[in-house]
Amino acid sequence: MNTSGTIGLDITEQYKVDHKESYAAWLQYKKIDDAALLKEYQTWTENIVSLSDSIVIESAQNELSKALSSMLDIHPEVSSGLKPKNRIVLATMKEFNLLDNEIDIDFKQINEDGYMIKSVSTKGNKTIYLLGKRDAGVLYATFHLLRLMQNRESLKDVNIIESPKNQLRMINQWDNMDGSIERGYAGKSIFYKDHSFSEDFNRIQDYARLLSSVGINAIAINNVNVHEVETHLITASFLPKAAEVASIFRAYGIKTFLSINYASAIQLGDLETADPLDSKVKEWWKNKAKEIYRFIPDFGGFLVKADSEHRPGPFTYNRNHADGANMLAEALEPFNGLVIWRCFVYNCLQDWRDRSTDRARAAYDHFKPLDGKFHENVILQIKNGPMDFQVREAVSPLFGAMPQTNQMMEFQITQEYTGQQKHLCYLVPQWKEVLDFDTFANGESSPVKHVVDGSMFPYRYSGIAAVSNIGNDYNWSGHTLAQANLYGFGRLTWNPDLQAETITNEWIGQTFGQDELVNEHVSHMLLKSWEIYEQYTSPLGVGWMVNPGRHYGPNVDGYEYSVWGTYHFADRDGIGVDRTIKTGTGYTEQYFRENTKMYDSLETCPDELLLFFHHVPYKHKLKSGVTVIQHIYNTHFEGVQEAEELKERWAALKGRINSERYEDILNRLEEQVEHSKEWRDTINTYFYRKSGIADEQKRKIY
Amino acid sequence: MNTSGTIGLDITEQYKVDHKESYAAWLQYKKIDDAALLKEYQTWTENIVSLSDSIVIESAQNELSKALSSMLDIHPEVSSGLKPKNRIVLATMKEFNLLDNEIDIDFKQINEDGYMIKSVSTKGNKTIYLLGKRDAGVLYATFHLLRLMQNRESLKDVNIIESPKNQLRMINQWDNMDGSIERGYAGKSIFYKDHSFSEDFNRIQDYARLLSSVGINAIAINNVNVHEVETHLITASFLPKAAEVASIFRAYGIKTFLSINYASAIQLGDLETADPLDSKVKEWWKNKAKEIYRFIPDFGGFLVKADSEHRPGPFTYNRNHADGANMLAEALEPFNGLVIWRCFVYNCLQDWRDRSTDRARAAYDHFKPLDGKFHENVILQIKNGPMDFQVREAVSPLFGAMPQTNQMMEFQITQEYTGQQKHLCYLVPQWKEVLDFDTFANGESSPVKHVVDGSMFPYRYSGIAAVSNIGNDYNWSGHTLAQANLYGFGRLTWNPDLQAETITNEWIGQTFGQDELVNEHVSHMLLKSWEIYEQYTSPLGVGWMVNPGRHYGPNVDGYEYSVWGTYHFADRDGIGVDRTIKTGTGYTEQYFRENTKMYDSLETCPDELLLFFHHVPYKHKLKSGVTVIQHIYNTHFEGVQEAEELKERWAALKGRINSERYEDILNRLEEQVEHSKEWRDTINTYFYRKSGIADEQKRKIY
Repeated sequence: MNTSGTIGLDITEQYKVDHKESYAAWLQYKKIDDAALLKEYQTWTENIVSLSDSIVIESAQNELSKALSSMLDIHPEVSSGLKPKNRIVLATMKEFNLLDNEIDIDFKQINEDGYMIKSVSTKGNKTIYLLGKRDAGVLYATFHLLRLMQNRESLKDVNIIESPKNQLRMINQWDNMDGSIERGYAGKSIFYKDHSFSEDFNRIQDYARLLSSVGINAIAINNVNVHEVETHLITASFLPKAAEVASIFRAYGIKTFLSINYASAIQLGDLETADPLDSKVKEWWKNKAKEIYRFIPDFGGFLVKADSEHRPGPFTYNRNHADGANMLAEALEPFNGLVIWRCFVYNCLQDWRDRSTDRARAAYDHFKPLDGKFHENVILQIKNGPMDFQVREAVSPLFGAMPQTNQMMEFQITQEYTGQQKHLCYLVPQWKEVLDFDTFANGESSPVKHVVDGSMFPYRYSGIAAVSNIGNDYNWSGHTLAQANLYGFGRLTWNPDLQAETITNEWIGQTFGQDELVNEHVSHMLLKSWEIYEQYTSPLGVGWMVNPGRHYGPNVDGYEYSVWGTYHFADRDGIGVDRTIKTGTGYTEQYFRENTKMYDSLETCPDELLLFFHHVPYKHKLKSGVTVIQHIYNTHFEGVQEAEELKERWAALKGRINSERYEDILNRLEEQVEHSKEWRDTINTYFYRKSGIADEQKRKIY
Repeated sequence: MNTSGTIGLDITEQYKVDHKESYAAWLQYKKIDDAALLKEYQTWTENIVSLSDSIVIESAQNELSKALSSMLDIHPEVSSGLKPKNRIVLATMKEFNLLDNEIDIDFKQINEDGYMIKSVSTKGNKTIYLLGKRDAGVLYATFHLLRLMQNRESLKDVNIIESPKNQLRMINQWDNMDGSIERGYAGKSIFYKDHSFSEDFNRIQDYARLLSSVGINAIAINNVNVHEVETHLITASFLPKAAEVASIFRAYGIKTFLSINYASAIQLGDLETADPLDSKVKEWWKNKAKEIYRFIPDFGGFLVKADSEHRPGPFTYNRNHADGANMLAEALEPFNGLVIWRCFVYNCLQDWRDRSTDRARAAYDHFKPLDGKFHENVILQIKNGPMDFQVREAVSPLFGAMPQTNQMMEFQITQEYTGQQKHLCYLVPQWKEVLDFDTFANGESSPVKHVVDGSMFPYRYSGIAAVSNIGNDYNWSGHTLAQANLYGFGRLTWNPDLQAETITNEWIGQTFGQDELVNEHVSHMLLKSWEIYEQYTSPLGVGWMVNPGRHYGPNVDGYEYSVWGTYHFADRDGIGVDRTIKTGTGYTEQYFRENTKMYDSLETCPDELLLFFHHVPYKHKLKSGVTVIQHIYNTHFEGVQEAEELKERWAALKGRINSERYEDILNRLEEQVEHSKEWRDTINTYFYRKSGIADEQKRKIY
């Protein structure tokens, strides 16, 4: 197989031929080999009956046709009446209720984006109903049906009732218009090239299919750091193309958002200020909103990074974030547009000598006092932790702390600090841990997931967003196994109660088929990978220790004397950041009482976050029974061994996976093994040199 | 004053008006205020008599006319006969000897580039003779005369006989054709822009004037790292423009060289190999040389960085550096062209865990065994130290170690590791120390300067090169005081026996005029600045401890776990690199016996290089009486105080320097003070955390 083998096709069409399996991700639609099952599936799917009509329903029909022809080698007729037998029926509530119902269906069981799948077999007629309250639900039901078929499940007596737990299920693209992707590790942007739109709509549509298949319903298509050219995305220069992209996503039930430059009124509007309380500024944004909605009638709204890392914002004018967000919210309100306002605000010009400033405190300190001050169509987007997507950090204390302000979660699928898609690091277990974290915001059993799904407090809008991990690589994600992170994010966002194992198995079956050994090994690899990555990188929740800027590879002091506020304070006696109330920065107090107590005390603070909350001597004994220094040595030696085991497990699957994906993944795993040694040796040597304490097991430290 | 004040002029002409003093550097030619002196000077210079005729003599005449009209407000007639009285006579040996000599002159007193200045006063006639063996000497004499006048020296009974000590007095431009300058800290390239020549020949000519005024006679006009576009400099696409640049330099006695890509035969010649022993490759280079000399008849030759930091070279073909250089040398031989072959060759993909590999050994290990194997027109260009232009490192043991191979020195004027022209760091004292270093290569009193001036061994070619510090900033050098480094390099290269104080005073007088306080303060500032910079940066010769890549600002472990072979091995007990014979890398053995002995022993190794040669405990007592750790603390606290004193000394000159230069320099000095604190605190904190040893004087360590 080579990339130039197919002449005359555009690059995306070429990928679909030359890199079929890598490109198809979990929508493989492989031919069913089992003759009995094939027969059974064929009888259920002889016809497609579409009672509703919309571009989204059309996408569902297309996906069905494509998948059935590929899996079952059949080409069902599509019709709009119920006459044919052995059929799949697609319908929204409205059209379904107009019928003399063949079956009894209560649409109250589902919410706006929900769906039902019901299979009914009578003598001489098999019907699968794919029903949604709206057309998006029908599409989700379609993808669900195809998932069942890809995983070879019986279609008999199917009775599925599904509603997404989260209202907004969003992807943030950190794509720049020069084609680069901030923190992108899978090639260039599929959206942009040479300061313009890429026009590879074929590829964008396939992305929409992937996203929709896991329930994503919103996307911000440009980087939150809005540079010079990107500032013009909300002008007539680019809006026509943005509208084309939006219609691709619209057909898959996905709303398009744009990240904006807070100083647009100055840079585009020639105003002298971007002060949110200035009437000319307000007016300018109102007109701007009108203009945008002329191009994109269902435009989602703005994603805003303001007053953060040198981005402009309301602080320039002595206004607060509520002033800043509300001004935009007013402009979008007439069109039901949303302002998604990021809480990643901190002092990035900190003096490392100043121990009183704690970056972890920043989001809470900035936003908590503003609770209740934001308009109804503003949502605060809060990163999972108070720092920045570390392999391990505490959960942000802001979740649940603002009962009167819409909140949503921001995860990072792209592996900025977690191995950059060179290392395997499956993040679903991490995300689950965050979502299940009990905030105690509303008494016991107040998990984060109930904050961001809007069930704990009466949020008008809420949900989960994540930074995408895809680029124009033929396998989308650099590391082919990193496709699982995109899949898992979508599924978890749909339903945070899903078990990691369930999501993983679903993904493996669709992606690699029904081979038990493949399932066993890949499942084990994915589910262990986060822990393994944590083992050989920075220990016990202290984070960072990476090369500055690039954020790849070990550099213990990389950020230690810098302005970014990310320290470990390791000296010859001990390590860790004292964030306790009495002797530290007082960060622990930002949590609700139960968590404050747990984190503030050395006795109850969990091992894995010990150095995030406490500065302790190297000989401090962990709950696990070993000392901090011995834990560092142990986990780093073990982490490398486990990385080697990952590779061996994969190597055992040779012949069971098509060769391109097998080799690609093997190469990454080999690179991971080598690089994990670099981590192991750098970290161990650093701490051995500093502490002078030998490894009890006398392993090699340089 | 503002940069856009003068409409209609090109940028260079504009600089000459808007930034007159900053731009003029040491060729200020200020009006003489002292009426008596003015009168005296005027009588010596009523006429210019040029007995010789060449483009170089023309440059001398032009410079004289320009300077005299500016300083003396006169416009002397230029004639070619001796008839006029009160005259300056310009002549080369050939024409001077044709005359019935007015005076007795023995041209044997000078070498090829030498000159004589003689002033003779008889009744009714004053004559100043500016005589050279060749026209370049006449130009040098002219600049010397103007230096005397700028420094207000009497012209009576002048009798100067000068010959440069070094044959090649060379500048290396690390300019790239995209306009960037590798390790440039003074704006963009004056040579290139947008992948082509800049065409700002006016600016290039002024650069030639500056260089020629201090005796520079060779320049390589592109970066030794030859990238894609620059590879084409030796093709017909760029040679016509290169020839134009060469003619500008030619008029100032400067030969033009080009840095080449060793793989040119492949990249330009479509050959499959660049193997230096391949006959097609040889042929290709011979034709290439012919082509180049058609465009530039006095082309200097090639500067080559091969097999270094990922540059191609003969190693690819299992050939050694002699094979590589000689192939090029053969091509250039018919035209008297030179190959300047850099010895900066080392393994830049080293494993930090491997303590047996010592980067400091690399140049000697690679080149010493090849002594006598190089063609006569090859010169090895050796960096002053075995590492890379650190603020302090040992002198390269390669100097004097190859009696049968032409050697020259490479210094770095651009302040890559010495404050990047944001910090004041006058390097003449450092260079003098290197040049005066006794190699013992030929018994006692075998200083480096006698190696590189070709007097110690019978070198056919030798000399000193340095990486330039200029760019298109209006003051050439970013920090206006950094002009002194370019000046000082030229003067020292002309005559390494000059005292640093002499050079410094010369420069100050020409640059800032004859103000005693200015002279006292600036001289003190310059002469102390290297020591000050060393104080607050990396201690005791260990070097590095900078941010990787950028090489600016403190980062103690920046290179400690990397591939570059630049370590300090600090642990909780001690610090330093053991390069001794018995317990270390054996690097000390590369020196001649006396130096091996001195460096190998803790007792005799000088303090300032202690950590370069030895790993010692923090409590090791220096010859100065303090411990290593206390020395680190002391120098870092004192260094900042001294930096503050630099600023105060400068501030005391307010009103005595034109305001632009005053403010520009003040701003840099203020920045230096702030940044020196960052150095102080980072280094002190790092070592305090690691050693746990408190400062005896209880000063603030964070």
